[in-house]
Amino acid sequence: MECECRLSHLILTNFRNYQEARLSFSPKVNCIVGANAQGKTNLLEALYFLSTGRSFRTPHLFHLIRREAPFFSLEAHFVKENVAQALKITYDGKTRRILHNQTSLRSLSQLFGILPVVIYSPDDVQLITGAPAKRRRFLDIHISQYDPLYLAHLVRYFQAMKQRNHLLKSQEEASLSIWEEQMARSGAYLIEKRKEALITLCVPLQRNLALLSGQKETIDLAYHTSFPVGQKEEFAALLAKGREKERRLGSTLIGPHRDDLFLSLNSQEARLYASEGQKRCCACSLRLAEWQLLKERLGVSPLFCIDDFGVHLDEMREKFLKEALFPLGQLFLTSPKPLSFCETKERRHFHIREGAVMVSDGAKKPVPEETLYGSALFPLATEQIAQAAD
Amino acid sequence: MECECRLSHLILTNFRNYQEARLSFSPKVNCIVGANAQGKTNLLEALYFLSTGRSFRTPHLFHLIRREAPFFSLEAHFVKENVAQALKITYDGKTRRILHNQTSLRSLSQLFGILPVVIYSPDDVQLITGAPAKRRRFLDIHISQYDPLYLAHLVRYFQAMKQRNHLLKSQEEASLSIWEEQMARSGAYLIEKRKEALITLCVPLQRNLALLSGQKETIDLAYHTSFPVGQKEEFAALLAKGREKERRLGSTLIGPHRDDLFLSLNSQEARLYASEGQKRCCACSLRLAEWQLLKERLGVSPLFCIDDFGVHLDEMREKFLKEALFPLGQLFLTSPKPLSFCETKERRHFHIREGAVMVSDGAKKPVPEETLYGSALFPLATEQIAQAAD
Repeated sequence: MECECRLSHLILTNFRNYQEARLSFSPKVNCIVGANAQGKTNLLEALYFLSTGRSFRTPHLFHLIRREAPFFSLEAHFVKENVAQALKITYDGKTRRILHNQTSLRSLSQLFGILPVVIYSPDDVQLITGAPAKRRRFLDIHISQYDPLYLAHLVRYFQAMKQRNHLLKSQEEASLSIWEEQMARSGAYLIEKRKEALITLCVPLQRNLALLSGQKETIDLAYHTSFPVGQKEEFAALLAKGREKERRLGSTLIGPHRDDLFLSLNSQEARLYASEGQKRCCACSLRLAEWQLLKERLGVSPLFCIDDFGVHLDEMREKFLKEALFPLGQLFLTSPKPLSFCETKERRHFHIREGAVMVSDGAKKPVPEETLYGSALFPLATEQIAQAAD
Repeated sequence: MECECRLSHLILTNFRNYQEARLSFSPKVNCIVGANAQGKTNLLEALYFLSTGRSFRTPHLFHLIRREAPFFSLEAHFVKENVAQALKITYDGKTRRILHNQTSLRSLSQLFGILPVVIYSPDDVQLITGAPAKRRRFLDIHISQYDPLYLAHLVRYFQAMKQRNHLLKSQEEASLSIWEEQMARSGAYLIEKRKEALITLCVPLQRNLALLSGQKETIDLAYHTSFPVGQKEEFAALLAKGREKERRLGSTLIGPHRDDLFLSLNSQEARLYASEGQKRCCACSLRLAEWQLLKERLGVSPLFCIDDFGVHLDEMREKFLKEALFPLGQLFLTSPKPLSFCETKERRHFHIREGAVMVSDGAKKPVPEETLYGSALFPLATEQIAQAAD
C-alpha cells in the first residue's frame, strides 16, 4: 500500500519576510503566485527547512530570522501513514530546537525522513554547470534522507580530515595514521553509497528526461573518483603516501570530498553543450528521480515543490512537465506570473504580497487567509488536523 | 550627433548547430523564438564572438565548431557611423583569423570596439551570487572594450604572477623582485581603472534598477580589495613581504586577481537576500549600465541582446524592462515561448528549429530565410549592404 504524506497546515513566525502567516494547503496542487520579492520562495524554503533543518539558499540560520526579530519558528501539521503529526522548529539566534509530536529531537539526523520534501529550484541549474561541490551536496543530502549512517560517516570523515590537515601543517606525525584510518573507513562507505545511489538514480532519471524532452534526449551519470580504488586499505595507503606533498599544500587531495558526478546529455558533456532549457530539464529530471527513490526508500511520497515553475522551458516541455507532476502527490508551485496549471478541482491558489497571504479555491474570489480558519492562536485544534486527514 | 551601429546581416557556417545560416535583421527589434535546444542562444553567442573574439559560454573555441566539421566561420555586415563594414572570424581548430574590411587583425585587442555588443543572459545571475571571478571577468571585459591599455596590463599582470609563482615554488629568489615590480605596476593600473569603472557604472545602474523595480529598490556597488593600499610601491613591498607564506601555498594571495565587486540591494547583501526576480533585475540593470557607458565611451550604441527574455520577472518588471529597452537601438531577444513584445513596425521574428531559420515581418506569414534574399553564396553583394544602410 502506498503511503501518502500530506501537509495540511504551515505556520510561520518571524521567518524571512513573514511576521505571522498560517496557511492551509490543498492535498493536491498548491499554486503560490506573486510579484518578485514578495515571499514566494520563502514558503518553499520553510518546507525545506522543516524537512532537513537547513535552507537551500543560505548556510547561516540568522539570515532566516525576520529583520529585528529575536527568533523564528516554523510549524507543520501533516498526515503521514494516516497519523496526524506535528513538527516544529525554532531558532533564537543561538540554538535550533526541533519538536516532533511533543518529542524533542537531539540531532539533525533524527529529523531526516520525518517530513520528506524535494524542491526543484532555479539554482539547481548549478547541478549541471556549477562546481563539483554542488553535485556532491546533492548526493550527500539525498542519501542522508534515507540512510542515517551515511550522515554519521560524512561527519566523521570531515572531522578526521580536519585533524589530519592540522597535524600535517604542524608537522606532527604521531597520530596521523589513526586519522587516516578513520578517513579511509568513512570515506570508503561514502563512496560506496554514492555509487549505489547513482546507479539507482540513473534509471528514473533517464525515464524522466525522455518524458520531458518528448523522447528526444538521453542522459547518463557517472561517478568520478579522485583516486583509482575504492577499498579502504588502499585509500589509507594512498593517504599515507601523499603526506609529503599534502603537507606543502595544507590540504588532502584525494577522497570523496574531491569526487564529482558527471552528467552527459546525448553523449556530450551536459555542462558544456546543453542549452538553458536542456539544463533545466536535466536538473528537473534529477529532482523527480530523487522524489521517486525517496518514495521507494521511505515508503511515503515526499512533497514536491517547484520554484519559478516552467521558467526557461518551451511550451512542449512545460506541458510534459505538467504531465509528469500530476501523479506525484502533493505539489507546491511558485510563479511570478499567473499559472494556468491547475485544471484539477483539488487546487488552491495563494497570492503572496509582502509576506501576506491571500487564498482562493478554484473559481472563488480571493479571501484573506485568516477568515478561512479564524485567527485563533497556535496550536491548531486537533479536530482541524483530523479533518485534513480525511 | 549620436552614432548608430546596426547589424544588417549575419552569416554562420558550421557554428554550433548551424551548418549554414544567413540572417538579415531589422534595425530595431529582432525576436528569436524557438523550442529549447534549437539554437537560439547560439545566435547571440555568434554576435558576442564577433564583438569580443570569445564565447560567453565556453573558454574552448573547439566547442563552437559544428560536430565533425573542420572549422567555423562568422561574418557580420553592419553599418557604423554611416559606413558599411564587414567583420569575419574563422577558426579551424588551431588558428583564429579576424578580417575587418579586408584587413587582417593581429590581436584580439584590436577587435574590441569594432562591433560592440552587450548581452544579458540567464547565467548573469552569477554576477550576483557567483564566485568573485565572475564579477572580475565582467569588469575586465567591460573596461577592455573601451581601454586597450587595460587589456595589455591584464595580460602582463597574469604573466608576471605566473613567473613569480613559478620562482617561489622553485625557490629561486634572484629575479623575483623584477616580476613583483611588473605585477605592482600593472596591478595598480587594473585596480585604479576598475574603481573608476565602478564609480561611473553606479549612477546608471541605480537609475536602471529604480526603473525596473518601479522605484521600489536601491542598489550600491563597492570595490573590495585584497590589500589595503592601491599605490604600486606599497603593493610591491607587500608582495616581497608575503614571499615566505606564499611559497608554502604556491600562489599569490593579494592583488587584483583576488579582488571583488560587492553589490548591496536595499542596503543588504544582494547575494544573500535578493529574491530570484530581484537578482535578475540587478544583473539586467548592470548590463543596461554597461550598454550606456560603452555607448558614451565608444560614441556608438552597441547592440543589446537578452537571452530568454523576461524569465523570472513578474508582469510589472517585465513591462518596465520593455520600456527600458525601447530607447536602446537595435535589439535581439530570444524566448522559448512566443514574445508579445514587439508592437513596433520595425520588428522581425525569427523562428529557429534545429539550426534552420524562418523569418516573418509584422503580420506576414513565416517564409524560409533563403527566399528573402536568394541563396546566392557569400560574400553578399555590396548593394545589399548599402541598402541596409539606408
